[in-house]
Amino acid sequence: MVTPTDSEPEGTRPPPARRRPGGRTARIRTQVLDAVRAELGEHGYDGLTMDAVAARSGVHRTTVYRRWGDVGGLLADVLDAASDDDWQPPDTGSLEGDLAALNQEIQTAMAAQPPIMAALIAASFRSEKAADAQQRLWEDRYARCEIVVSRAVRRGDIPPRTDARRLLIAATAPLYHQLVLLRTPHDPQLPGHAARTAVLAAAAGAFAEPEPPSADDT
Amino acid sequence: MVTPTDSEPEGTRPPPARRRPGGRTARIRTQVLDAVRAELGEHGYDGLTMDAVAARSGVHRTTVYRRWGDVGGLLADVLDAASDDDWQPPDTGSLEGDLAALNQEIQTAMAAQPPIMAALIAASFRSEKAADAQQRLWEDRYARCEIVVSRAVRRGDIPPRTDARRLLIAATAPLYHQLVLLRTPHDPQLPGHAARTAVLAAAAGAFAEPEPPSADDT
Repeated sequence: MVTPTDSEPEGTRPPPARRRPGGRTARIRTQVLDAVRAELGEHGYDGLTMDAVAARSGVHRTTVYRRWGDVGGLLADVLDAASDDDWQPPDTGSLEGDLAALNQEIQTAMAAQPPIMAALIAASFRSEKAADAQQRLWEDRYARCEIVVSRAVRRGDIPPRTDARRLLIAATAPLYHQLVLLRTPHDPQLPGHAARTAVLAAAAGAFAEPEPPSADDT
Repeated sequence: MVTPTDSEPEGTRPPPARRRPGGRTARIRTQVLDAVRAELGEHGYDGLTMDAVAARSGVHRTTVYRRWGDVGGLLADVLDAASDDDWQPPDTGSLEGDLAALNQEIQTAMAAQPPIMAALIAASFRSEKAADAQQRLWEDRYARCEIVVSRAVRRGDIPPRTDARRLLIAATAPLYHQLVLLRTPHDPQLPGHAARTAVLAAAAGAFAEPEPPSADDT
């Protein structure tokens, strides 16, 4: 759900006639953010320095300092770049299937080696800039996932006026709580269990918003 | 649920005749851990140093270094000391009431000033010793909360063979996810909503363990 890849893929050959505005800027950003991810994956936050990122990226350190300011700025840009993709939530045909697949993505990303996602979350406790960017990324992901809930409402699986955000947080929170905070041992059933719990609660009306005070239907 | 206070209350007058073994050791621990909490609340992890703790506690720095080793050791001991209490989960007469009251405790502790609990959780991303101690504390708290679930089973509110730990994690995870990771604005309905969601899911069998393969009942 989060693991960031390059946001601006560049063609292998430059366009022949007109130069893309920002082409060099975008290329530098790609090089630098790739280096941040690699350094973070290898050394974690404590080993991440502006100079190591500059050296690894091949971009002049003056440019790195001028454009990103500090390590927090680099991390924030990695997180912001992760939203520049076309990620969509799973579409399996059922709410429980979609949520289980989503949770599986989260569990897989959190267990990935190198642990980029885990390192980014940990870094958000060190840098306000990274924390703000991490929140923006989660906001982006939860917003994109709302379609999972509206599809379930349309299918009649859960009540109309279900609060999509509360349902999505209930479905995913046990993953984050256990993987990030409690650090429980790997449990292959966790994604499915958390999905099923949220679906049963949703079907029982746990996330139903109160009826609006209107008079046009009984 | 977590905010630690002194673990070894000492009488205002020393016992007249026999000396309690470990009395001085316990007193030094109280002084040092009080100083850790105060420094952590005021300055966070980054401002926490062995020397500042020694100075504030009035305990010789050699003693602090010898007994706690480093800042991670101090934090781990604060977290371990938090388990040396007689905390019991709320007993309101209903599962939803108990879980809502528990969640309210968590929300209040996370919003407390100075933010000791939030700082300890953040510190667990910096120090392995603190992370291990934080896990021990959570394990202690979840274990103590299991009685909330067994009372509900006895009352017939939820199915027998409900997995207490999974229910408790489902009930509390949205609090931790929103307060620690997503850092969403304060929502007074959050404790109750998360409690109600877990209860509805539990009543629908979300946390029911499979029947054991026995032959003594149909």
